[in-house]
Amino acid sequence: MLSLQVQLGARSYPIHIGPGLLHDAQQFLPYLRSGPVAILTDDLVAPLYLAALRETLAHSHQPLIEIVVPHGEQSKSLAQVEEVCGQMLAAGLGRDSTLCALGGGVIGDLGGFVAAIYQRGIPFVQIPTTLLAMVDSSVGGKTGVNHPLGKNMIGAFYQPRAVIVDIDTLDSLPEREFRSGLAEVIKYGLINNPGFFSWLEDHLEAILAEDGDAVSRVIHDSCADKADVVARDELESGLRAILNYGHTFGHAIEAATGYGTFLHGEAVAIGMIMAADLSRRLDLLRESEQERIFRLIQATGLPTHAPRLPVDDYLRYMRIDKKAAGGQMRFVLLRGIGECVITGEVPEAALRQTLNAFME
Amino acid sequence: MLSLQVQLGARSYPIHIGPGLLHDAQQFLPYLRSGPVAILTDDLVAPLYLAALRETLAHSHQPLIEIVVPHGEQSKSLAQVEEVCGQMLAAGLGRDSTLCALGGGVIGDLGGFVAAIYQRGIPFVQIPTTLLAMVDSSVGGKTGVNHPLGKNMIGAFYQPRAVIVDIDTLDSLPEREFRSGLAEVIKYGLINNPGFFSWLEDHLEAILAEDGDAVSRVIHDSCADKADVVARDELESGLRAILNYGHTFGHAIEAATGYGTFLHGEAVAIGMIMAADLSRRLDLLRESEQERIFRLIQATGLPTHAPRLPVDDYLRYMRIDKKAAGGQMRFVLLRGIGECVITGEVPEAALRQTLNAFME
Repeated sequence: MLSLQVQLGARSYPIHIGPGLLHDAQQFLPYLRSGPVAILTDDLVAPLYLAALRETLAHSHQPLIEIVVPHGEQSKSLAQVEEVCGQMLAAGLGRDSTLCALGGGVIGDLGGFVAAIYQRGIPFVQIPTTLLAMVDSSVGGKTGVNHPLGKNMIGAFYQPRAVIVDIDTLDSLPEREFRSGLAEVIKYGLINNPGFFSWLEDHLEAILAEDGDAVSRVIHDSCADKADVVARDELESGLRAILNYGHTFGHAIEAATGYGTFLHGEAVAIGMIMAADLSRRLDLLRESEQERIFRLIQATGLPTHAPRLPVDDYLRYMRIDKKAAGGQMRFVLLRGIGECVITGEVPEAALRQTLNAFME
Repeated sequence: MLSLQVQLGARSYPIHIGPGLLHDAQQFLPYLRSGPVAILTDDLVAPLYLAALRETLAHSHQPLIEIVVPHGEQSKSLAQVEEVCGQMLAAGLGRDSTLCALGGGVIGDLGGFVAAIYQRGIPFVQIPTTLLAMVDSSVGGKTGVNHPLGKNMIGAFYQPRAVIVDIDTLDSLPEREFRSGLAEVIKYGLINNPGFFSWLEDHLEAILAEDGDAVSRVIHDSCADKADVVARDELESGLRAILNYGHTFGHAIEAATGYGTFLHGEAVAIGMIMAADLSRRLDLLRESEQERIFRLIQATGLPTHAPRLPVDDYLRYMRIDKKAAGGQMRFVLLRGIGECVITGEVPEAALRQTLNAFME
């Protein structure tokens, strides 16, 4: 088992990563408050892992309630928050209770937000079951739901008491989603850790074969890299923006193609290739490094090109993304593998060339 | 003008108290972030004070949007949160915006909660217009809304950047609501500050005549007392429970008589009398001090007795209140004026005697 501590002063918490953890009560008991425990999960994850978690938490001899919501993004709504809180209130859960969020990113975002606002905050334990949730939502404390007028527009920064990553849950993850999660993994190497990027190049075969040791290391190092960035900027005032490398393009690709065409990680993969290309066009990044980035993403089996649409379509969505952020359009670019630069100074001509170059 | 600083480390903030502050741009400008400003108020307060605040904030030369919700407790709902956030999103408000909550307790609770969760948190400035909101909601960071299954069950601890108390807004407050607010004021003397209690006894006439200096001092000292308690227990783990003095009885009176029969402060007034009586029955409080408490509450023009209902009705609601708190039934009692004791050890016979003694 690998472990790391996310350092956030009084809100520091551990991440434990390894096989079989879902069956190990010692992983969970230290993080439960004295009262009842609520397990939140969705209707896809419940048949796979709910029984195991129920059995493990039974060792606490604390009352247990189970809340199963529909899978998918539509559960990230205030209506669902009210429904989940209603089930917790009906069961009499007070401020001495604990919420365990078992599932992917939607369950982590929804569960963390419910924990943040239920009776003004109860502790929660995150048990991510997708690679993306393991390497992304595990660190950073971002929780929340969607508003009809915008994704993730309602939420809170709220830290879990612990994150328990049982890598065996990846066995049930579709390969396409596994590869999509690897896009964010590659991102951590690109923005913060050139050694990790090289290690990914060297061990891609074992990773794609889902070798346990390789996957554990992938998750551990990704979380450590993200924790490093977040610890320096918990409330996202500046530095943390580098975590959005590839995301300005990626969000525009997701929006312009209609959400659901690409998985988030797939759109980010194309976005990272575009951001590298733009960095090279602005003489920030060497061509040889741009090629390494392209090759690793391609070898991972991730898409490298966006569908051919009018460039203005993509640009429009990039501007909406910028407007939602309440500021100017800023790009996270690369000066080298492992070294970011944030700039608002991007000539539109270069942007158009990049978009054109990576449409198929 | 009187001012005090609520000491909460990086989240410390000032409270400014005086006449005419609503017209003084210098009170507001230092606390606005660089982007647009949203004013949240209700349909009773808007015709009275919205124009003044609009004119004052215009000095910032920042875009201004106004959101007016229906007055009353029914606006404390997640549906209203979604509606308010929708108006802010439609106006393009980003994380550089500021929310100003102009109104009584409902607007403060709703506005603070919206600020806490809009794009994971934007700054807010509180401009309370009722005595209760000035002396209670100004300090403590409690924000939130109701759930159909329970009041204040959804919320967050979130501190304002500043609280601006223009005591002229009390001119439009009905006298009954002003006296109701004084119940919480008397509470601060009782739980924490015997000197303030004596001062209230000595200056009651000026206070009831709404003399500006007396009212400013009432608000200042109440906020200072509450801030003192909150600073020692920001997240309500223990000590802060003394702020609920009179509230276990008070909530039961509100619930048993149907919400709306008594104003909150009126129910708390009766509850404080009952808690003093119970303290005396348990040989904690001297009879002479119990009488001082009764006399001050009576002289303030607050009710001293609850309607005659079966004692079991009140007891049932007290037990529900306890269940919602997820713990045992605990009473905040007095060992003397200015000195609290929290206990779970109350014989039911004494409780029944107290309830019987203060039903009319």
